[in-house]
Amino acid sequence: MGQKLKLVKNAAGRKVPTLVNGVKAIPFKGVGRYSPKGVKAAPPIRSCNDYPSSGNKVVGSLKEALKKCGVKNGMTISNHHHFRNGDLMMNQVFDTAAKMGIKNLRWFPSASFPCHEPMIKHMESGVIHHIEGSLNGPLGNYASDGKMKGLAVLRSHGGRWQAIQDGEVHIDIAIIAAPTADPFGNCTGDRGPSACGLLGFGLADSLYADHVVVVTDNLVDFPCVPWQIQGNNVDHVVVLDKVGEPEKIVSGTTQITKSPDRLFIAELTAKFVKAAGIMQDGFSFQAGAGGTALAFAIYLRELMKEAGVKARFIRGGSTKYLVEMLEEGLTDFILDGQTFDLEGVRSMRENSGHINTSPFTSYNWHGKGNFASILDAVVLGATEVDVNFNANVVTHSDGQMLHGIGGWQNCLFSKCTILPIPSFRNRIPIIVDEVTTLVGPGELIDVIVTERGIAINPKREDLIKATKKSGLPIRKIEEIKEEVDDLVGAPLDKPEFTDEVVGVVKWVDGTVIDSIHKVKQ
Amino acid sequence: MGQKLKLVKNAAGRKVPTLVNGVKAIPFKGVGRYSPKGVKAAPPIRSCNDYPSSGNKVVGSLKEALKKCGVKNGMTISNHHHFRNGDLMMNQVFDTAAKMGIKNLRWFPSASFPCHEPMIKHMESGVIHHIEGSLNGPLGNYASDGKMKGLAVLRSHGGRWQAIQDGEVHIDIAIIAAPTADPFGNCTGDRGPSACGLLGFGLADSLYADHVVVVTDNLVDFPCVPWQIQGNNVDHVVVLDKVGEPEKIVSGTTQITKSPDRLFIAELTAKFVKAAGIMQDGFSFQAGAGGTALAFAIYLRELMKEAGVKARFIRGGSTKYLVEMLEEGLTDFILDGQTFDLEGVRSMRENSGHINTSPFTSYNWHGKGNFASILDAVVLGATEVDVNFNANVVTHSDGQMLHGIGGWQNCLFSKCTILPIPSFRNRIPIIVDEVTTLVGPGELIDVIVTERGIAINPKREDLIKATKKSGLPIRKIEEIKEEVDDLVGAPLDKPEFTDEVVGVVKWVDGTVIDSIHKVKQ
Repeated sequence: MGQKLKLVKNAAGRKVPTLVNGVKAIPFKGVGRYSPKGVKAAPPIRSCNDYPSSGNKVVGSLKEALKKCGVKNGMTISNHHHFRNGDLMMNQVFDTAAKMGIKNLRWFPSASFPCHEPMIKHMESGVIHHIEGSLNGPLGNYASDGKMKGLAVLRSHGGRWQAIQDGEVHIDIAIIAAPTADPFGNCTGDRGPSACGLLGFGLADSLYADHVVVVTDNLVDFPCVPWQIQGNNVDHVVVLDKVGEPEKIVSGTTQITKSPDRLFIAELTAKFVKAAGIMQDGFSFQAGAGGTALAFAIYLRELMKEAGVKARFIRGGSTKYLVEMLEEGLTDFILDGQTFDLEGVRSMRENSGHINTSPFTSYNWHGKGNFASILDAVVLGATEVDVNFNANVVTHSDGQMLHGIGGWQNCLFSKCTILPIPSFRNRIPIIVDEVTTLVGPGELIDVIVTERGIAINPKREDLIKATKKSGLPIRKIEEIKEEVDDLVGAPLDKPEFTDEVVGVVKWVDGTVIDSIHKVKQ
Repeated sequence: MGQKLKLVKNAAGRKVPTLVNGVKAIPFKGVGRYSPKGVKAAPPIRSCNDYPSSGNKVVGSLKEALKKCGVKNGMTISNHHHFRNGDLMMNQVFDTAAKMGIKNLRWFPSASFPCHEPMIKHMESGVIHHIEGSLNGPLGNYASDGKMKGLAVLRSHGGRWQAIQDGEVHIDIAIIAAPTADPFGNCTGDRGPSACGLLGFGLADSLYADHVVVVTDNLVDFPCVPWQIQGNNVDHVVVLDKVGEPEKIVSGTTQITKSPDRLFIAELTAKFVKAAGIMQDGFSFQAGAGGTALAFAIYLRELMKEAGVKARFIRGGSTKYLVEMLEEGLTDFILDGQTFDLEGVRSMRENSGHINTSPFTSYNWHGKGNFASILDAVVLGATEVDVNFNANVVTHSDGQMLHGIGGWQNCLFSKCTILPIPSFRNRIPIIVDEVTTLVGPGELIDVIVTERGIAINPKREDLIKATKKSGLPIRKIEEIKEEVDDLVGAPLDKPEFTDEVVGVVKWVDGTVIDSIHKVKQ
């Protein structure tokens, strides 16, 4: 049931609702144009009077923990997604809530995955009212089809922190699946049989939720170190047989591309970074989890070796490729936000060159600066871009909600944002007249790299000048678009949208940058 | 000018004011009897719009930083005391404020030291209205003499966190002296020419203050790791020639005793811990910074070696003695709260067995539990105890405010709290009819160890039973008192107090446990 809502035009010319799931929403005002007011969310003051002096907070079951948290209809339950498609907790949590007869919950994960398909039955039965968080696979389709009761609210990792911190989303109960924990609730993701790396996406939840439950399959003596999540923020600890399948964190977008075209694009991207003068001693970069971005890192590594250049830091998701660069001395540090393979997990446990970060340090727009803008270059994916460099990452050209935003919007603030993308997919051009969904404003996107050439945003005269004599195929974006349009021929039927809104996309400052409409069947 | 205030009797029978420096104060209600209401303090929401996207927050001078923070009359300026008597920052800060013509500031250090004597001139001239924080040396005398305009408010380390967290003390500007920092404001105490160890006493300040200024003498490239204080909470960075003299952190109470009596008491304490069955594999203990407590650790170490016993963790202040125990494999971890000598600083930088803690993890009573109650034994000092085991740590029998509380009150919640103290000092008995100032309720103090015998709190029947056949000189506290009173002879003239209040002592939950009165001249 998509919603017929009063829409207003925002600063990007997109029509957006001013009320999202009953909460007042501010239309996007332009990059850097919205100034927040007021104070941060303030969690209740607790007292040691109410916690066991032994420090032992272990309770017998998930059900007992939910009871002790006072679970009731209409509450918001959150979790982190560090297990990605290997999460074993959240279906159990909502199964338990269902058996307890609880209704109308809001699920607020940092991302959902295909493994969470069972949540559909909980939405059908009214246990879950709606989900706010990245949707893809079956849940993405369910929401895209207008079947979810509430609007999907797509936020970046930084935007999720901002929403919690600013009190826009109040979490009643946070569930922290923890590969290792002690009875006090200190816990870590970097060790234990289910080690998944970091727990940083659950950090805001642990700080701001009314009640925090740590669930672990590896209880160790106090103190569990490192304590990525602090037991002082934890109410209860539950011990289960298995909390997640870490071998499944390598899923979806986190495998290197085998496509010759994409490998070529990745190579071109690395050459551009070098030619533009970015690849200098002490520089920094981030490459997303997409297959092309991973390949980029491998090409850049070779160029760095040739030139004898060392980075100051690389922003992860750690992968075995980044780990090798750390081990080869090509960077002082990897700043980890999450972990994309088991070699990354091992290395972050063993190598002190890995530094744990969180959406607070890296991405939160409503902080005193963040790390994203310090990066010299960031390489990201996109589903569509337009000739003004506006980009989409959440919907495909068919209008279906199929990706989360991840850190994508946050990363756009780097000193040089590069999108390496094929110029068409399945006969559909990627450079379009207008993106289906606006997720990133063009003024923040500096370079598009396709197999047909590199387009530099005209605003970046410095980059245009720096690469003029590089021999790289620098072209106007309009030129590449025309060539692809000619090649692909008559455009496929574009999806038609109804006036029913099924979701909104938040900008990093919490304003609404676009709406997602239900596709006409 | 001590204050004539309306006083009410609290649950400990002590007369306390209900208004402290203009803020409503709750009289002590008994251990575990006060339940806080409401929500934590909520700092303003900031925006990256207002911070340099380069991440470079360096400004030219302290004066410029204070200006940018909007310093004005009546504000509260805070700092951590990790440099102890080697702090070089805070006199400069208030000298700068004085030159800027600012008046009526409240100084809110986590502790002050004799090096801060120049603050007296700022109090005389009205630049500083009053100090809230541990007072000793010249500042202690100044306040004791009733010369300070406001009341001294003595809080434990945990109580200081609680007061900030609960919004009882609002910090306008926090100054973080940092031995190493990057331009973004990430900083650490464990390295750099002025390395002092931890910065944990400044953590609450960094989280809750409106404005945070990091001052360093060792600016490094981003990222400064570890980041004990996160740059995302920092507004400005100032670079000066020297922020502190780390060689002076070994000051006052942090030297091992040479007194044969006190060495004997320390040995007796160690033997008691063993005899009581506390010294078992996986146990934990904390020994304060006092000379006797340090000696205790050395004796216990020998007993542990003999028995082949290994601790799970020791709570620091790290000293070279604890470091040796870590290196000898006598403990898995040292949980550091501060650092008491340079060997401690070196080790915490190099040995991953050191775990950084803060008053939040260790001491905050208004959290979801804290570490203090998990400890198997804690060994602390005291200036006086009474026969009901009530103890004093802030005033001497002459009524002068001469010590801070430190973590003392917080540590009382351990499973076994032991006070090794000489039975008299300078012909003044330490076991008294009534403590001059009540700082720790007797129900939390389990054992007193003197050179004349060990007194166990009658409430601890388990300890009495466990040590019955130990051969240790277990005696009634009344017996020891009588013996000392006889020995010392006619009591010296006790100080007489005026009805003017010069300070209050807070309990760990923010309630007022006692008042400090001005001594009659």
